Amino acid sequence: MEQRISLITLGVADLARARGLYEKLGWHGQEVQGTVFIQIGGVAFVLWGWHELAEDGGLPEQAAPGFRGISLAHNVRSRQQVDEVLATARSAGATITRPAAKTFYGGYAGYFTDLDGHLWEIAHNPGFALAEDGSITVPDFGAS
Amino acid sequence: MEQRISLITLGVADLARARGLYEKLGWHGQEVQGTVFIQIGGVAFVLWGWHELAEDGGLPEQAAPGFRGISLAHNVRSRQQVDEVLATARSAGATITRPAAKTFYGGYAGYFTDLDGHLWEIAHNPGFALAEDGSITVPDFGAS
Repeated sequence: MEQRISLITLGVADLARARGLYEKLGWHGQEVQGTVFIQIGGVAFVLWGWHELAEDGGLPEQAAPGFRGISLAHNVRSRQQVDEVLATARSAGATITRPAAKTFYGGYAGYFTDLDGHLWEIAHNPGFALAEDGSITVPDFGAS
Repeated sequence: MEQRISLITLGVADLARARGLYEKLGWHGQEVQGTVFIQIGGVAFVLWGWHELAEDGGLPEQAAPGFRGISLAHNVRSRQQVDEVLATARSAGATITRPAAKTFYGGYAGYFTDLDGHLWEIAHNPGFALAEDGSITVPDFGAS
């Protein structure tokens, strides 16, 4: 398996409502056959029905309150940008699960959950290089 | 918020065991302070403790069997490659939740869950251009 991910698909309860949050955060895509596709770099971010995605993946449908074992992170270029994005998210209907604060690695970050409970971290991490195009590079930790 | 994701972090029960599965699938990274970082294009794929990630995100820890409302997709260049990756995943300890089959959009795909229940789709989708470097481009559906 080559070292890449092609799509990230979130199961959502109400497509228009879910899309609305990401639109308010500044993300724009296309809706096709009950599915929203948003191009993010070389990856597609997808919003699809909770029921449809569960069925497509062959898993029993189940509400999953609380922690789901995954987070999506959006890194920014300054602490101020962390505060700005979290404020925008809150005003767009997201729930702040952890207010922005200094992190153990010398950064600054906070978390929110979107309208369907998907967890997002907004972080400023001086140790992870952020390119002009927004892509990040994992540092060479000299580890294996 | 710029249109991008920086990191995708999976909560895992046993870091070495979880990493072992992805190594067997051909993904290699670095372990630093109880965290595995794997560079995938301009994104970092991260394995971290289930408990640590729940706490870091400010969410109550909770086992989440069944569907979690998210899937990660790895698109390949042929139907044969779908079968090959699923076979490798199964032999590496993953659970096939949906065997490979033709899809409604004219492709071919199957799903597995990894050792911590995270859902992966392996797909061949002739309608989504796959570049030489593995990045995908969402077609222009003429939709809004």
